[in-house]
Amino acid sequence: MRQSILSKNDRLAEQNRGFFRARGLSVLNVLSSPGSGKTTFLRETVKGLGSKLKAGIIVGDLATDNDAERLRASGAPVVQITTGTMCHLEAEMIGRALKQLTLEGLQLILIENVGNLVCPAAYDLGEDLRVVLFSVTEGEDKPLKYPPIFQVADVVVISKMDLAQACEFDRQMALANIKRAAPKARVFETSAKTGLGMDSWREYLAEHQQRKSARDPLEA
Amino acid sequence: MRQSILSKNDRLAEQNRGFFRARGLSVLNVLSSPGSGKTTFLRETVKGLGSKLKAGIIVGDLATDNDAERLRASGAPVVQITTGTMCHLEAEMIGRALKQLTLEGLQLILIENVGNLVCPAAYDLGEDLRVVLFSVTEGEDKPLKYPPIFQVADVVVISKMDLAQACEFDRQMALANIKRAAPKARVFETSAKTGLGMDSWREYLAEHQQRKSARDPLEA
Repeated sequence: MRQSILSKNDRLAEQNRGFFRARGLSVLNVLSSPGSGKTTFLRETVKGLGSKLKAGIIVGDLATDNDAERLRASGAPVVQITTGTMCHLEAEMIGRALKQLTLEGLQLILIENVGNLVCPAAYDLGEDLRVVLFSVTEGEDKPLKYPPIFQVADVVVISKMDLAQACEFDRQMALANIKRAAPKARVFETSAKTGLGMDSWREYLAEHQQRKSARDPLEA
Repeated sequence: MRQSILSKNDRLAEQNRGFFRARGLSVLNVLSSPGSGKTTFLRETVKGLGSKLKAGIIVGDLATDNDAERLRASGAPVVQITTGTMCHLEAEMIGRALKQLTLEGLQLILIENVGNLVCPAAYDLGEDLRVVLFSVTEGEDKPLKYPPIFQVADVVVISKMDLAQACEFDRQMALANIKRAAPKARVFETSAKTGLGMDSWREYLAEHQQRKSARDPLEA
């Protein structure tokens, strides 16, 4: 049954991928533990992008629309998906959420997955980039202890660097562990609170979108 | 299929429960996000208990035996379960691990579940008490955003209180949210680093074990 759920999900993920390509949208699937700072990171990402790259946000949670409320402070359109007891987002939920999002003028969709460092790894949503966050408070060995999700990461973001000293965070060890678990991933060291690393991250997003448009231009 | 996995798990959990009763063992299932500080909390719990209450530990991770290594520093016997891609522990894994644990002289078994604030809630392991940790760095609204796991908590432990100020943790809001999600749970505010709250927690464990022995005495 798990197999057939996955293959149904894979088909719907490809539909989403085609839909995104037709609209010239770059799409990120953002994954992490609960409490790693996804929401604040995405809010500050969008704020700083301003009109350079217009983003919409889809956010998944078991319950509450607290995150959607926080994300709306960025000025971006936000759709909340409430999953009940489901531990991950699926491609079908994204397909439905797209109908509620005003896509006009958007170049970027940020999907904030349910806080879970295990299960969402198995579900393609049709995204271009999988972004895995972990915060300095979680410990340097997370990439080694949760290999399935780090193995599928295109980007690894270390968040809450402002707390690094208070947590006695060992940066070199963390970077070495990311290198082992996700050798090809781009790494960003950030603090959404102080702004550290956020400009490089936004530049990376803008370049990704440019490369994508050049490779796959929309009709005039 | 999920239904039948769960009912198989429930049967094996009852077997574990009977086994624990026959040996006079108190058993805790300790649940949290990755990086909430379960391992350090359990290590310090056991260190402080000394010979008052002898504990054994079973620890689940997708990969590595880093946590087992850390836990051995407590002096307690430790069995590591490596789950591969499985996002939670099941009763059957505990049954197998019990065969590797020297039970002689133990009164307490601490089970550190896979770091996941969603899926482990659905799997009874035969424990007496479900203990849910969340750290001050994760944000005050975690109990509202992950209701299934908080609803089954007998105890909620707030960890890493030493970082409360650095995170601008709102203690009153956190306590109010726990009250809403888990109205009957005992709450402990702790720092395994400074020792804050650890003595009250250990006293609670000792009292729980005494109540259990009085209710269900072993044959002489």
